[in-house]
Amino acid sequence: MDQARLRQLLEGVRAGRCSVEQAMRQLKSLAIHDLSFARLDGHRAVRKGFPEVVYCEGKTPAQVAAIVRKLVRHHDHVLATRAAPEVYRAVRRVAPRARYHAEARAITVERKPVPKRPGVVAVLCAGTTDIPVAEEAAVTAEIMGNQVRRYYDVGVAGLHRLLAVNEELFDANVLVVVAGMEGALPSVVGGLVDKPVIAVPTSVGYGASFGGLAALLAMLNTCASGVTVVNINNGFGAGYAASLINALAASGASR
Amino acid sequence: MDQARLRQLLEGVRAGRCSVEQAMRQLKSLAIHDLSFARLDGHRAVRKGFPEVVYCEGKTPAQVAAIVRKLVRHHDHVLATRAAPEVYRAVRRVAPRARYHAEARAITVERKPVPKRPGVVAVLCAGTTDIPVAEEAAVTAEIMGNQVRRYYDVGVAGLHRLLAVNEELFDANVLVVVAGMEGALPSVVGGLVDKPVIAVPTSVGYGASFGGLAALLAMLNTCASGVTVVNINNGFGAGYAASLINALAASGASR
Amino acid sequence: MDQARLRQLLEGVRAGRCSVEQAMRQLKSLAIHDLSFARLDGHRAVRKGFPEVVYCEGKTPAQVAAIVRKLVRHHDHVLATRAAPEVYRAVRRVAPRARYHAEARAITVERKPVPKRPGVVAVLCAGTTDIPVAEEAAVTAEIMGNQVRRYYDVGVAGLHRLLAVNEELFDANVLVVVAGMEGALPSVVGGLVDKPVIAVPTSVGYGASFGGLAALLAMLNTCASGVTVVNINNGFGAGYAASLINALAASGASR
Amino acid sequence: MDQARLRQLLEGVRAGRCSVEQAMRQLKSLAIHDLSFARLDGHRAVRKGFPEVVYCEGKTPAQVAAIVRKLVRHHDHVLATRAAPEVYRAVRRVAPRARYHAEARAITVERKPVPKRPGVVAVLCAGTTDIPVAEEAAVTAEIMGNQVRRYYDVGVAGLHRLLAVNEELFDANVLVVVAGMEGALPSVVGGLVDKPVIAVPTSVGYGASFGGLAALLAMLNTCASGVTVVNINNGFGAGYAASLINALAASGASR
Amino acid sequence: MDQARLRQLLEGVRAGRCSVEQAMRQLKSLAIHDLSFARLDGHRAVRKGFPEVVYCEGKTPAQVAAIVRKLVRHHDHVLATRAAPEVYRAVRRVAPRARYHAEARAITVERKPVPKRPGVVAVLCAGTTDIPVAEEAAVTAEIMGNQVRRYYDVGVAGLHRLLAVNEELFDANVLVVVAGMEGALPSVVGGLVDKPVIAVPTSVGYGASFGGLAALLAMLNTCASGVTVVNINNGFGAGYAASLINALAASGASR
Amino acid sequence: MDQARLRQLLEGVRAGRCSVEQAMRQLKSLAIHDLSFARLDGHRAVRKGFPEVVYCEGKTPAQVAAIVRKLVRHHDHVLATRAAPEVYRAVRRVAPRARYHAEARAITVERKPVPKRPGVVAVLCAGTTDIPVAEEAAVTAEIMGNQVRRYYDVGVAGLHRLLAVNEELFDANVLVVVAGMEGALPSVVGGLVDKPVIAVPTSVGYGASFGGLAALLAMLNTCASGVTVVNINNGFGAGYAASLINALAASGASR
Amino acid sequence: MDQARLRQLLEGVRAGRCSVEQAMRQLKSLAIHDLSFARLDGHRAVRKGFPEVVYCEGKTPAQVAAIVRKLVRHHDHVLATRAAPEVYRAVRRVAPRARYHAEARAITVERKPVPKRPGVVAVLCAGTTDIPVAEEAAVTAEIMGNQVRRYYDVGVAGLHRLLAVNEELFDANVLVVVAGMEGALPSVVGGLVDKPVIAVPTSVGYGASFGGLAALLAMLNTCASGVTVVNINNGFGAGYAASLINALAASGASR
Amino acid sequence: MDQARLRQLLEGVRAGRCSVEQAMRQLKSLAIHDLSFARLDGHRAVRKGFPEVVYCEGKTPAQVAAIVRKLVRHHDHVLATRAAPEVYRAVRRVAPRARYHAEARAITVERKPVPKRPGVVAVLCAGTTDIPVAEEAAVTAEIMGNQVRRYYDVGVAGLHRLLAVNEELFDANVLVVVAGMEGALPSVVGGLVDKPVIAVPTSVGYGASFGGLAALLAMLNTCASGVTVVNINNGFGAGYAASLINALAASGASR
Repeated sequence: MDQARLRQLLEGVRAGRCSVEQAMRQLKSLAIHDLSFARLDGHRAVRKGFPEVVYCEGKTPAQVAAIVRKLVRHHDHVLATRAAPEVYRAVRRVAPRARYHAEARAITVERKPVPKRPGVVAVLCAGTTDIPVAEEAAVTAEIMGNQVRRYYDVGVAGLHRLLAVNEELFDANVLVVVAGMEGALPSVVGGLVDKPVIAVPTSVGYGASFGGLAALLAMLNTCASGVTVVNINNGFGAGYAASLINALAASGASR
Repeated sequence: MDQARLRQLLEGVRAGRCSVEQAMRQLKSLAIHDLSFARLDGHRAVRKGFPEVVYCEGKTPAQVAAIVRKLVRHHDHVLATRAAPEVYRAVRRVAPRARYHAEARAITVERKPVPKRPGVVAVLCAGTTDIPVAEEAAVTAEIMGNQVRRYYDVGVAGLHRLLAVNEELFDANVLVVVAGMEGALPSVVGGLVDKPVIAVPTSVGYGASFGGLAALLAMLNTCASGVTVVNINNGFGAGYAASLINALAASGASR
Repeated sequence: MDQARLRQLLEGVRAGRCSVEQAMRQLKSLAIHDLSFARLDGHRAVRKGFPEVVYCEGKTPAQVAAIVRKLVRHHDHVLATRAAPEVYRAVRRVAPRARYHAEARAITVERKPVPKRPGVVAVLCAGTTDIPVAEEAAVTAEIMGNQVRRYYDVGVAGLHRLLAVNEELFDANVLVVVAGMEGALPSVVGGLVDKPVIAVPTSVGYGASFGGLAALLAMLNTCASGVTVVNINNGFGAGYAASLINALAASGASR
Repeated sequence: MDQARLRQLLEGVRAGRCSVEQAMRQLKSLAIHDLSFARLDGHRAVRKGFPEVVYCEGKTPAQVAAIVRKLVRHHDHVLATRAAPEVYRAVRRVAPRARYHAEARAITVERKPVPKRPGVVAVLCAGTTDIPVAEEAAVTAEIMGNQVRRYYDVGVAGLHRLLAVNEELFDANVLVVVAGMEGALPSVVGGLVDKPVIAVPTSVGYGASFGGLAALLAMLNTCASGVTVVNINNGFGAGYAASLINALAASGASR
Repeated sequence: MDQARLRQLLEGVRAGRCSVEQAMRQLKSLAIHDLSFARLDGHRAVRKGFPEVVYCEGKTPAQVAAIVRKLVRHHDHVLATRAAPEVYRAVRRVAPRARYHAEARAITVERKPVPKRPGVVAVLCAGTTDIPVAEEAAVTAEIMGNQVRRYYDVGVAGLHRLLAVNEELFDANVLVVVAGMEGALPSVVGGLVDKPVIAVPTSVGYGASFGGLAALLAMLNTCASGVTVVNINNGFGAGYAASLINALAASGASR
Repeated sequence: MDQARLRQLLEGVRAGRCSVEQAMRQLKSLAIHDLSFARLDGHRAVRKGFPEVVYCEGKTPAQVAAIVRKLVRHHDHVLATRAAPEVYRAVRRVAPRARYHAEARAITVERKPVPKRPGVVAVLCAGTTDIPVAEEAAVTAEIMGNQVRRYYDVGVAGLHRLLAVNEELFDANVLVVVAGMEGALPSVVGGLVDKPVIAVPTSVGYGASFGGLAALLAMLNTCASGVTVVNINNGFGAGYAASLINALAASGASR
Repeated sequence: MDQARLRQLLEGVRAGRCSVEQAMRQLKSLAIHDLSFARLDGHRAVRKGFPEVVYCEGKTPAQVAAIVRKLVRHHDHVLATRAAPEVYRAVRRVAPRARYHAEARAITVERKPVPKRPGVVAVLCAGTTDIPVAEEAAVTAEIMGNQVRRYYDVGVAGLHRLLAVNEELFDANVLVVVAGMEGALPSVVGGLVDKPVIAVPTSVGYGASFGGLAALLAMLNTCASGVTVVNINNGFGAGYAASLINALAASGASR
Repeated sequence: MDQARLRQLLEGVRAGRCSVEQAMRQLKSLAIHDLSFARLDGHRAVRKGFPEVVYCEGKTPAQVAAIVRKLVRHHDHVLATRAAPEVYRAVRRVAPRARYHAEARAITVERKPVPKRPGVVAVLCAGTTDIPVAEEAAVTAEIMGNQVRRYYDVGVAGLHRLLAVNEELFDANVLVVVAGMEGALPSVVGGLVDKPVIAVPTSVGYGASFGGLAALLAMLNTCASGVTVVNINNGFGAGYAASLINALAASGASR
């Protein structure tokens, strides 16, 4: 039940068009909907800023296409992650404006251009093989209305690459730092900046990397303050959280 | 080399009191200090908002007291974490204003009252045994200049307790959610709010909790968006990151 | 040796048609069969309610078909789990009434309709990708004579979906709760109801889900009382245990 | 928000004493309370059948005593688990009827005798060192109103001990089977009976037992049907779930 | 149920003293007793060769003393493992001939000298800190009637120590090889001899030894043929299995 | 250097055909060969009883065929394990008497019939999916000269199947017990017999079986005495060790 | 910021062309560039000795070819590791002198012959299946200017093979020791020689080898002194470190 | 068997004092001694450069004192690691020159001053709590004749501290880099220098550090070339390997 309909009901009560008993029955039956509506309302508010998200892993191209078709009817912006090229081909048929971000393996649909809020989300990654996860974070943050700056291949074994962009990093409101193997980059970045850092371990590596476990543990044990961590390869999650944080910075003015 | 001294040097050059060669020699010899000063400068900017932090684990009471004595000379606010009561007794002798937060096992010294920024940091925990970690997060956020609201013992097995404070949660800029055992609370909270959630697994539990591993894995695998994770029992890290995020919200106005 | 034949033998002894020596020889030669029969007898009693079960993993379509052919001779109801479509095609040739439950990857044969006992088994799952495991539980419970109600896609990140069916859940005698990723749903459900909850972790997830380990550990560490756990993806085991429990409820009248 | 207050609100709207806006705000904020209130009611119904439970681990004797003092005012039966002898001494001062179950490390208070429902809960354990966990399960089931039969030291390495009680096991409605080391007993018992079996791994063992992990994994991988598992050493959880199941059997008559 | 009782039952049926129903119930329930009783007989035969074993871990000195007192009444030889000195002091009061093997932390009682079978059990260990586990194996094998030769501190990092005893090793029927840290000794020994090797990992080590896991995994992955493994620190288990094997060699003559 | 050549050298010294210096140089340079020869000699003695073994995993059919071609020139019996059917086809071309054991995935070549020693090796397995590993053990033991008796599908969930063969098990000198899932069978068998039991965990299972880890841990933690363990799926290793033990029993007569 | 630019800046300040504020901003931001530039210089010096390395895993043949094309323009020697045959075919088209080391799966390009420094790097491996990793180490060391001696298939289960080359091992400056399964070879070699040993665990094995974890843990827990370890299958890393060490030996003369 | 005795034997054969058979038996039995003697010689050569090492963990003060008393008779330098203060007090009584390195928990005895070879071993550590492990490495390298430079508390979260000593690091022949928590320091150092780096993980940390596992995995997965790893907290092993490498550099002149 959206707010308009709730208001209508109450005005009906006030005007005598609807008895108290009828209103009570409706409210009771909708009790959950009231909750879910509160939730949906929150959702809608959220949705103003960024689109619903489709996780494609384990869904057929046809299933994803069907979901996207429904979403584009109601939403200006749609994001689908972990999408293989054949999924994109299916989606393009139902949403011709769909765009495929090959490295991120993500699909975005923008029926209107996404308005960008002030403030920068920086996305860093350690090696070139970490780029797909970094791109998933970047594309997610972009479709959610953020300006993203990318700093790729700045791993700690060649520290000069990172130090070369040191100053620019201070300009970002929040930094997503992606690394596989020993996962050391977020610690170094977290020691340089005074903004929240979201660390993303990747499964890049072999042997005792154990599918990204080594990087994950390293990031959880960081000696730098202000670093939080998401699941292995979870670029989307990092981009999403970064957007929430950057939105806070943008909205701060009104408090 | 602080900014005042650097400015003095450059003004000396400008005024001809100091030759270019002399300046170069000083700058070169201070090259590292320049860097470290840049670092210190960043530090100082940071410190305006919150104090240096002493991690007491593995330090003797005398060692902690010595560090605190040095810190209180230069800083208005000092935080020491993982401090046993005997550490506090040693600290109190060198810093009579020191206050012991028994549940958080933290010591704070406020030579001046900490000015509070607008915006609320909410700290939730699932069970009463999680409170020490939650308090470490709360005390950290408070000494760093944040208003903290505590919602304790609101674990998912008695959902009504969480739902009872549902609306208040929407008022927070950032939420620290602490839970041991199955670590489900951050997922539920992350599904309710549209603000960044920092999840803190605790070692509360036994058997297959494996010292907090179960809660940690649960939080990393959350199905809710906007949730990031810190190390097991790392209340300090969560409070620190929450403060960085809340500071962004407060400073947003000036962008 | 079934009970009828044992009774016949003993009546023969009583009637003098069979000497004690002959009876002893028969009983001795059947000693193991006596044991196995005791076992089989228990089995048969059990079987009145539900059929033998074929685990198809690692068996060829021909092997499964041969087993099913033998089973349908003696049993009214047959269940085969983890069956690929090609297994079903082979089974259909020997058991034309066989029915394929594609999502559950299960085959059932009902020579007579399964009589349903009173009482409801509720099967819930957190996300759409958990449905195959949930369906395996549901199909198992159904072929064993239970009425099953399904509540799918009610994961904790959108709590209103679960709360919307809250009251119905109270009607079930036993609840099977299926979830991957952080595995939080059984804790929430276990906190809402006062009936036994059987938690099924699934391998849905990636990275630090470690093939379902995260969900498994979460469920084992649940803070809700009355929750027990089965192996990862073991929908069959959960459905089977739920049926045993629901049968107790139904049979309670006669005690 | 109970129904009376809802009616009052709507009548206020109708009568014009309350604006639509005010009503909307109240409905929005109270939506949750409606739910939590339903939940609270459910809680009460639950409490009629069995007492509240205090988990003593990590609480001081004084804290436990304070909780128990409050509980005995409202409840006829109280259970406290993981209670050291000194906890009992503190409890006895506030609840003179308190009784200490030394092996189970549990405290029970019965202001009235617990009425026993029909049907038996069987509690088995493999070795003598598993007895404390088995006793926690047994004491839990007893205080919740069940008749318990104990079969201890019947581990699989001396199969004759188990087979000697084989028949009696068939009489139980539900069986709690406790084992450490290789955790094989639930598989053997689960193969003998046709009732739900709740398996409890214990931390009994050394080396590659890894604190009970070996037994836990064995039980999760049981080849017997109808077996579900709880956390390592969680005798309370098993006794609680067994009681819920046995209660279903007893209540079955009324359906 | 022995044959006499079976005959009696059937004759009772024939004579009408026992109804068919009664006979069926008895046959059903006793089917297993026949087997378990056979089993007990086997047990007794086994006990003739070697003494009962008391595992002292988790038992009080008084409990162990009580068990030993009972055992020495019926058995010539008694072994108790994992016994602290205070346990020995308690045992000595009830069994004055008890002898304490301090390094093995084992107690033996020999009411008669143990007769030694031909054939040698060799016990090797890698370092001096592995000696307690090796001694547990050696003492176990000795009390079970075997001649034991000890080769201690012959680890692979000083290969000449092992090669110096190379030839003697060929004389043993079975070799128990104890090692912590990297657990390499069984592989080297298994490559030298053509007799069964029982490998015992110990928890000697630190860091990535993970309490003996490293040694255990190494031994399970041995490239030498003829090596089998027991649990970490399980000297008793290795000595016991070695004795069974050596007994086979001794008894071979009679086949 | 074989013994003939060593004798020749010494006789050359004695006869003055070879100086002491020359002999020393030869002996020194051959020092290793002396050792290796001792080793080779032991090898040869060993080989009289059983053939060399080829592990095919990771070798091409052509490579295996080349090795077998060389082996059959010098040995009467050859064993190749983990051999795919195409490997067998390649081997058959160079060794027409080669025989493929499809379930064991093993190839044997017998240029002469293998003479069988007295005494029986029993091979048991829990479920039908464990048969390939059990067959690898059985085929290994057979080609090494042992009589093997197979008891398959006797898992603990249907105990009567095992008890039915209970007495026969006593006849075996050594028992190889193969099981996946919860790996309980060796504990039960080890409790029934008084002969060495070699436990083989298999990777049969799913979810928390973790590729056989659950069964492996269970077997290492067995409460039955006389049980030792080999690596997951290592049927060959178990058959080999069983043969060494059975050979001891056979050779015992001569001591 | 090189010295010329620093002087320019300061002269600008002196001349008034640049304000103190501007200078401060530049000095602040460039402080790090001074350092990173020093770093680049160090890089160049390093590159003089040995070529850049391309890790091919996860790169397309075209990508690798493009990188190699660029490298051969500036460098005399190029190494690419983990290269499939199709990668080599692509590289050969852009670098006709490229050579494929099939077992090492490595590509080398030598525009000039690599000059060899004095001193030997020994590369040993335990079994034939470890050879690919050993070859990666050997090829890496060779292209970096070292003489390599290979000792393959010298695993500990046939100790005579290792002892046969015992003396030659003493000639090496540094030894790379590669082993899978139980990973015992580095301990034995480390006990024989007095030179640094670099241990390389491989993923050769099955079951409880857990993809090389068993060998890795064994090597980390070695009882031999002077042994250090690299990641599983990291032949390149071992060859690289061995080359750095051997270069030290060669360069020692000049100190 | 030394060369003199071998010659004697052969001369006995030549002179007819010893039969060929007798010689063969002796040669066969002594084959190993020939080898072990070669080994012993190697040992002696090794010992010239540095002293024997006593690992005190698990030894009583009296035992360590006894070992040291024996060692100081034959050796100029003695090292004992993991020594508690009470061990030192016992050692001092038998070796008055013994010196206790409290932070390293090591004891050294220098009967003569240790001659220092040219070349520097650098020892770095990340945090102050890592110092004990770093000191163990430093003390080990010093007693083995190396000049050590210490760089402590230079962890990556404050990069300027490391960069401040950047240039000095280039002077070292080999670097020991000690770090706990996320273990990132060796990667950063390995990227800066072109010398061998030995990484030492420490158990400093909590929660998901899992006793140093996080740091260990990070170091094994380092993206920097030239880094090898030792066991958690194994400062001694790192110092020992560093000394072997530095000795190579020093000895290089003579090749």
